[in-house]
Amino acid sequence: MIKIKIVSRQQQRYVQLLTAAKLPQLVITEDPSQATVLLADPPLIATSLNDYPHLQWLQSTYAGIDALIKPQLRQDYQLTNIRGIFGPLIAEYIIGQILNYQRHFWRYALQQQQHQWQPHPYQAIAGKTMVIVGTGTIGQHLAKVAAVFGCHIIGINRSGIAASDDFNHTYDLNDLDYALTQADYVVSILPATTDTNDLFDQGNFSHCKNVLFFNVGRGNSVNEADLVNALEQHHLQHAFLDVFKHEPLATDHPFWDHPQITITPHIAAESFPEQVFTIFKANYLRFQQQQKLEYLIDFKRGY
Amino acid sequence: MIKIKIVSRQQQRYVQLLTAAKLPQLVITEDPSQATVLLADPPLIATSLNDYPHLQWLQSTYAGIDALIKPQLRQDYQLTNIRGIFGPLIAEYIIGQILNYQRHFWRYALQQQQHQWQPHPYQAIAGKTMVIVGTGTIGQHLAKVAAVFGCHIIGINRSGIAASDDFNHTYDLNDLDYALTQADYVVSILPATTDTNDLFDQGNFSHCKNVLFFNVGRGNSVNEADLVNALEQHHLQHAFLDVFKHEPLATDHPFWDHPQITITPHIAAESFPEQVFTIFKANYLRFQQQQKLEYLIDFKRGY
Repeated sequence: MIKIKIVSRQQQRYVQLLTAAKLPQLVITEDPSQATVLLADPPLIATSLNDYPHLQWLQSTYAGIDALIKPQLRQDYQLTNIRGIFGPLIAEYIIGQILNYQRHFWRYALQQQQHQWQPHPYQAIAGKTMVIVGTGTIGQHLAKVAAVFGCHIIGINRSGIAASDDFNHTYDLNDLDYALTQADYVVSILPATTDTNDLFDQGNFSHCKNVLFFNVGRGNSVNEADLVNALEQHHLQHAFLDVFKHEPLATDHPFWDHPQITITPHIAAESFPEQVFTIFKANYLRFQQQQKLEYLIDFKRGY
Repeated sequence: MIKIKIVSRQQQRYVQLLTAAKLPQLVITEDPSQATVLLADPPLIATSLNDYPHLQWLQSTYAGIDALIKPQLRQDYQLTNIRGIFGPLIAEYIIGQILNYQRHFWRYALQQQQHQWQPHPYQAIAGKTMVIVGTGTIGQHLAKVAAVFGCHIIGINRSGIAASDDFNHTYDLNDLDYALTQADYVVSILPATTDTNDLFDQGNFSHCKNVLFFNVGRGNSVNEADLVNALEQHHLQHAFLDVFKHEPLATDHPFWDHPQITITPHIAAESFPEQVFTIFKANYLRFQQQQKLEYLIDFKRGY
């Protein structure tokens, strides 16, 4: 028998799903010393990794596994994450925020409270240029959706090679500054690695002209003080931030009251247990048959 | 020479566009008795149609030409409207309102004012069913965009024949009640004709189960008292209304304060003069060469 322990804020739901699925040779254990498999939220399991002497495989319930790739943590097991299910949710978030902003929905809601009928001029997404920094499965899905709205899409990645037909241009990370000069929207979907720390700083922001900036990757990629300066200098028109260097964002953080910053509490994409479980199940069958797992993390690259 | 008079809230912009375009044989006149061509906003021109003894062609700057098809008005000229440019704007409005609502953006904005970090569960568009009532160019474009978000699309029209591949099913208007039983979202894009008066009444609403209802066609298609009842009886979860029987909506109208109604001041799609002018220009060249005009209105059908 293969023994699995679940460590998640969605514990109960995963127990239900596992029980219902009746996977071959798999039993749930509560005892860390017995478990060879973990299905776990990275921040919850990170501090107790050493309690699992027989750990062979950890299936993360998140896309972001940065909590598990810190140098002081063990790396003697197979770590897999979740991919492919976040693209639609991230695309919803980005397109929804753009439309909410450009189409003045907030303003009309305030006017409704005053019984006030007053149209305001607006611009459409069609014809705007979106720079997507990070062209993995999430970036590719966002490109596909934004393209249907008539957006011109520029991708940024390490190779400079287009990840899909929806990218009108693709540049490598060294040409980020050139891409930013063309942007109306800039979307960061970068994972947290040491390479992405403060990638968006005064230097890179200075190439932007009045853009809408979105961070739905990880908070480490944005220099917070430089972001505020870039807003004041009109390099950025507005910033939509779902991720932060420290979460939850501190109650006294200056971002909360900034009129050009929209804050959401890390909800751009959520791991719906049903979708996570579908990925886990397929991977478990591979694990049981000693086949190569999908969505394996390279501890060196950090993704 | 062919003489044109412009009657529009965007008068100045159209004069600029016409002057810059230098169309053959065309001159602007201010004198109604001289004009053979009108470029006009329907509500502005409707009351003075009889001042134009030589009128041959009226190019509407709107898609909605109901102000000009009233039985007491003359019909001895060619009336053309604007098509094909509203699809992207209507799709933005519908998708934007759905996301604003489902993804709790309003709630997060209020939480931001309180420096409050509190995620809320949400549902995605993927897997929901959208019933689009009216499958012309606007409905087809909306179907294309909603399909990219993973929506299942049902079209309703007079023929029951699918207008494009993006419709998973298409029913004729007689089966609207059956379609409504399957809906998560219902979008009315109907033109104002006598056939569409109060189409959405207690009878049709009663087939809906907790749907998000959108009216971006014309206000005549919704029975206002029945809409409020349908919200109270949970046939509708929320109504997003951009058009009304009388616009602007009266200051004392009960819709303004209804917590399940979102009101916008007829802004779902706007006639951008540049786009209208592109259509006018192509039609003018046809008119000048005595060819058949595009987007001709049939006064009998009313569209």
